[in-house]
Amino acid sequence: MFIIGERINGMFKDVAEAIKKKDKAVIQSLAKKQIAAGANALDVNVGPASDNPKEAMGWLVKTITDIADITLAIDTTKKDAMEAGLNLCKSKPIINSVNANEDKMDTFFALAKKYNASVIGLTMDKSGIPKDSEGRLELAMKIVASAMEHGIDISDLYIDAVILPVNVAQAHAQEVLKTIRELKILADPAPKAILGLSNVSQGSNERLKPLINRTFLVMAIASGLDAAIMDADDKGLTDAAITAELLMEKQLYCDSFLDAYRKR
Amino acid sequence: MFIIGERINGMFKDVAEAIKKKDKAVIQSLAKKQIAAGANALDVNVGPASDNPKEAMGWLVKTITDIADITLAIDTTKKDAMEAGLNLCKSKPIINSVNANEDKMDTFFALAKKYNASVIGLTMDKSGIPKDSEGRLELAMKIVASAMEHGIDISDLYIDAVILPVNVAQAHAQEVLKTIRELKILADPAPKAILGLSNVSQGSNERLKPLINRTFLVMAIASGLDAAIMDADDKGLTDAAITAELLMEKQLYCDSFLDAYRKR
Repeated sequence: MFIIGERINGMFKDVAEAIKKKDKAVIQSLAKKQIAAGANALDVNVGPASDNPKEAMGWLVKTITDIADITLAIDTTKKDAMEAGLNLCKSKPIINSVNANEDKMDTFFALAKKYNASVIGLTMDKSGIPKDSEGRLELAMKIVASAMEHGIDISDLYIDAVILPVNVAQAHAQEVLKTIRELKILADPAPKAILGLSNVSQGSNERLKPLINRTFLVMAIASGLDAAIMDADDKGLTDAAITAELLMEKQLYCDSFLDAYRKR
Repeated sequence: MFIIGERINGMFKDVAEAIKKKDKAVIQSLAKKQIAAGANALDVNVGPASDNPKEAMGWLVKTITDIADITLAIDTTKKDAMEAGLNLCKSKPIINSVNANEDKMDTFFALAKKYNASVIGLTMDKSGIPKDSEGRLELAMKIVASAMEHGIDISDLYIDAVILPVNVAQAHAQEVLKTIRELKILADPAPKAILGLSNVSQGSNERLKPLINRTFLVMAIASGLDAAIMDADDKGLTDAAITAELLMEKQLYCDSFLDAYRKR
């Protein structure tokens, strides 16, 4: 599975403080830790509190690319902050994210074309997040169509069916799994399926969060998930992901399959 | 989920010895332990070494029913041993199992009718275990048809899609998951989906068996699994099952959902 480390996000207190104090060491240490734990890419989000998102995003991306050549998912809804991030990436970046609103898709798919970026499309629009898989697939179809119109290669498109916290929207989990299964027959080639995983346990008992996260990740992999933005440093979570992929025959069995995956 | 404890099986050394020595305490302790851990039923299998399976099955069932009023899955391919077990059950028993061979189905569905028992049907026949979900579903359909002919209520029928060890038949896991999903549209009402779970990790590294078991169980629950014959006393496994069912909305969310499920 393609693992995007979630940790460089201004929602976390240490990252918000590091951005404020321009403390590179904190960010670079988080980058290294996630990469060592197996992250294939890093999400980069300045957080809600930043008063200059464009400048903060530029600083974050520069701080990371100074020490690591890894795919970055530039995570912002603001065009200028997005472009500031994309501009500084050394590897092919990921735009995180567009929703299914026409104006948003036009703006961000144009940026994707300009910077040769992959794109994460969220199955939500002005009316919010659909309550069932049919609604989510309708929005996914809109995103696929818009990507095609903008000349984006569908193999560069990730669809995020948007999981809501199980403690407030319990019925959504099954609908997200169904959406992932049906995404695979939406287009040929199919867009990739991705999830912002930790949202599923947002607000749940702290002690139970890792269990909820890894259980839902395994269910999503059984449904065809290709990628997740998640806590790359949670070994129980990555163990579960590797084992689920083994059972889906996405890697060959060997007696030490966890170690073999991590060493490859 | 309906959990059938796997532990009273003559494949385990302590059980084989207890049968030989007629040591009731060992069997009764295993029964109590599994029930305390949350088993809804207990599998009862005399094991391959028994020289008088009929007598051994009768003794095992009597030993358990003396101390517990719980559903028993009488696990044998021999008609006389099956009948000896069914005869002594106090609660509605489960016949474990029939395969898709005509003679076997005729014999065991007649017993199911006579003893008002549920039945586990394995998707295998004289030619073995099909390599894909299509083959498994074809055999499931045969079993459903035979059950109907024998006047068995389909809600009393469990289909086991037969998982093979991932270390020797890695491609089968996905086919089993697909079979479980499609079982649900095979008949109305649909037969229940069950698995003999531990087989998936048979022969794997001992340290990794629990991880493989709980990962595959979660994948199967996401695919619609209703029941499993499994290690009821593995808390990591039952935690995973309860959490997967929570995410499938089979129980209501509360902050202490694991405790709530276990106390119900």
